[in-house]
Amino acid sequence: MKFAGINSSPPRGMRDLLPDEVELRDFVMSAILSTYRKYGFSRIETPALENIDLLCSGEGGENEKLIFKILKRGEKLNLRDQPIQESNLADLGLRFDLTVPLARYYADNFSKLPLPFKAIQIGSVWRAERPQKGRYRQFTQCDIDIIGLESEIAEAELVVATSDALLAMGFSDFTVRINDRRILLALAEYCGFDADSFNSVFISLDKLDKVGIEGVHAELIDRGHSAKSVNTLIDFLKDISSSQCEVRDIQKVFSTFSDKTLFDALDQVMKAIDVNSQNRYSVKFDPTLVRGMSYYTGQIFEISYKNYPFSIAGGGRYDKMIGKMLSRDVPACGFSIGFERIIYILQEESYKFQQESNRIALLFDETSSLTDILTAAQALRDKGNMVSIQPRQKKQRKQLDELADRGFKEFCVVNAEDQSLKTRPLSKEVT
Amino acid sequence: MKFAGINSSPPRGMRDLLPDEVELRDFVMSAILSTYRKYGFSRIETPALENIDLLCSGEGGENEKLIFKILKRGEKLNLRDQPIQESNLADLGLRFDLTVPLARYYADNFSKLPLPFKAIQIGSVWRAERPQKGRYRQFTQCDIDIIGLESEIAEAELVVATSDALLAMGFSDFTVRINDRRILLALAEYCGFDADSFNSVFISLDKLDKVGIEGVHAELIDRGHSAKSVNTLIDFLKDISSSQCEVRDIQKVFSTFSDKTLFDALDQVMKAIDVNSQNRYSVKFDPTLVRGMSYYTGQIFEISYKNYPFSIAGGGRYDKMIGKMLSRDVPACGFSIGFERIIYILQEESYKFQQESNRIALLFDETSSLTDILTAAQALRDKGNMVSIQPRQKKQRKQLDELADRGFKEFCVVNAEDQSLKTRPLSKEVT
Repeated sequence: MKFAGINSSPPRGMRDLLPDEVELRDFVMSAILSTYRKYGFSRIETPALENIDLLCSGEGGENEKLIFKILKRGEKLNLRDQPIQESNLADLGLRFDLTVPLARYYADNFSKLPLPFKAIQIGSVWRAERPQKGRYRQFTQCDIDIIGLESEIAEAELVVATSDALLAMGFSDFTVRINDRRILLALAEYCGFDADSFNSVFISLDKLDKVGIEGVHAELIDRGHSAKSVNTLIDFLKDISSSQCEVRDIQKVFSTFSDKTLFDALDQVMKAIDVNSQNRYSVKFDPTLVRGMSYYTGQIFEISYKNYPFSIAGGGRYDKMIGKMLSRDVPACGFSIGFERIIYILQEESYKFQQESNRIALLFDETSSLTDILTAAQALRDKGNMVSIQPRQKKQRKQLDELADRGFKEFCVVNAEDQSLKTRPLSKEVT
Repeated sequence: MKFAGINSSPPRGMRDLLPDEVELRDFVMSAILSTYRKYGFSRIETPALENIDLLCSGEGGENEKLIFKILKRGEKLNLRDQPIQESNLADLGLRFDLTVPLARYYADNFSKLPLPFKAIQIGSVWRAERPQKGRYRQFTQCDIDIIGLESEIAEAELVVATSDALLAMGFSDFTVRINDRRILLALAEYCGFDADSFNSVFISLDKLDKVGIEGVHAELIDRGHSAKSVNTLIDFLKDISSSQCEVRDIQKVFSTFSDKTLFDALDQVMKAIDVNSQNRYSVKFDPTLVRGMSYYTGQIFEISYKNYPFSIAGGGRYDKMIGKMLSRDVPACGFSIGFERIIYILQEESYKFQQESNRIALLFDETSSLTDILTAAQALRDKGNMVSIQPRQKKQRKQLDELADRGFKEFCVVNAEDQSLKTRPLSKEVT
């Protein structure tokens, strides 16, 4: 569809949201926000744009390759001096996540913020990825972070608050999986991998859910790790896959490679979450859980749901990153809800949330005065109804069916003679 | 504040929002959304980015000079062929308003939308303006539009719904000013200005509030309009400034230059609004009201409040624009709340909105188990409180004062011996 050569489609890889989807998204956002607020979190906002230096500082990993960059403006855009390099053309970029901006925000504003600081961020991020089904170049992220708290109450509260938000949206029977980055390190050491190849080992291990033990085995060999270490790891994976793995069992295996306190803390966090869950969801220790980002320093967690092949939330402790711009460590722990995945699942499951109010269509024709129409609508709204004023169409049966399809429950015709505002039910069954 | 050369400030002309301001903004947004939803409006969303062709199609007027443009990516960015022109470097841009995207959205999606279509849009827009006090390069716009309805019930409903939203935020005694673009045209014709200089006349007239009748006089002469026409206009302005101006008076003056029906419609709309207002706000005919954008075709309106030198909302009918991409006229009428201005006024007036729930700080120390802390917090939340878990500090008086400053009303200490969860009031007066 074109006019004067202009295409009416949204930009490649981006999309328009129709009213029904926005309503679902607003419901989910409101469930998340009201839950997190009950836990004392406050929402903050940073600009969608950041200086290009910040976005390219190395904290964003692979995402730094996917930045939408903003062309310099006015005299700053120098197209005279040759050769022209891409790096001289842009001064700003659209954020690709909410964590790098949070670090900058905290460095710039910490003196005005409470300690500990409990932040909610919900907002769009942009990545110039190759468009594919279900993945868009603009999407919503939803993070909570507790900054400045060393105690593991931070971990426990993030998990409980997020689980609570999921329950508020109607999810249940999901599983919280927990591990600790330091247990992963102990595992790699226990298997005898080279210390500088740990991250490569973790990248392969992270695929366990998708490719299985054999797949991990093959990839580790492919990557050139020592066969002895790989076999030790594979034996370990087979060992723990046969039964629920307990923190204390793993502690025994790794006793020489790690600190006892981290197992105690993991036990405490799991117990606190388990008590709080009241059996509405479960919590499970998973020593193979990796999480992608390398900035994690302590406990890490993910939430999985039914047989969906992706987690619906994930996070962990990252004590080294937030403080980088302040040149000091600042303890931090975060949890991110996979907002777009939640929407995807709710749409897949045809989730119907409770409409807030009764929906009435108020029909008018040309004989009604504007004052009568508005007064009638107001009277119905004052009783708590949602009222949409609509011109009465000649084909009334067709119009009423359409209104019923759109979720209207009743209709009413403005009538100069009869001002009783009698509403009638709207449904395809009723004639 | 720098680390490795990276500045922690947000980009020039943009800003971080601290928790208190976000809370106020969320309150205002929620008041607006819930009011508009009661009127049957649905929220929609378009991407923040649009194709550069659309943004530069001429519908955005002066704003097209202020676009943040996105650098092409990968192979599309050709820096080899000389000379390099700015227009070849960008393929996308950040939207500068919500109206141009709405026209594209409607053209692309109209077959899936109800008729009439009542849309709410709340979102960020970006303009690369010279930064100045109180004006930012990213700001929020908030528009409602009724598309596909010719009846003036659209105008009346937009004004009433927006007034209702303002009342819900605590505003009252504001004034809705109404005019019709066709009355402006009749006025210009009546004064005998050249038909092709009308827009220039309106630009000067638009400054009446700021520069007064003498200022408008001087500018019109400066711009080279005929002295006779200018004098006729100035006499008219003096005439109507002495008393409240009625629609019927103006109709008599302009009877030969315009259609009677538009005055009848204006009368009907004003009456309907006036009845609906129940004297909580006023509605006033203002034949000098211009509104900046040239796309208006019928009634136009603005809301002014106290002595603030700007309107807090504005809009009107624009029947020619939305349909442009479809090559047919589509009746449309819109109203935009000045979101940032509303926030500015509420901050100026130190507006305190009702907190939704009682705020309790739950203090813990290292002797408490995570399970006890979470269980205590849950018990207090189950009673409807907002509960924030905080480590107990050694200087308890200082901590309690800070909590009171941050809006906490009570505090409670987690105690292994006494599990009664007795909360105590938090206030600087209480010792």
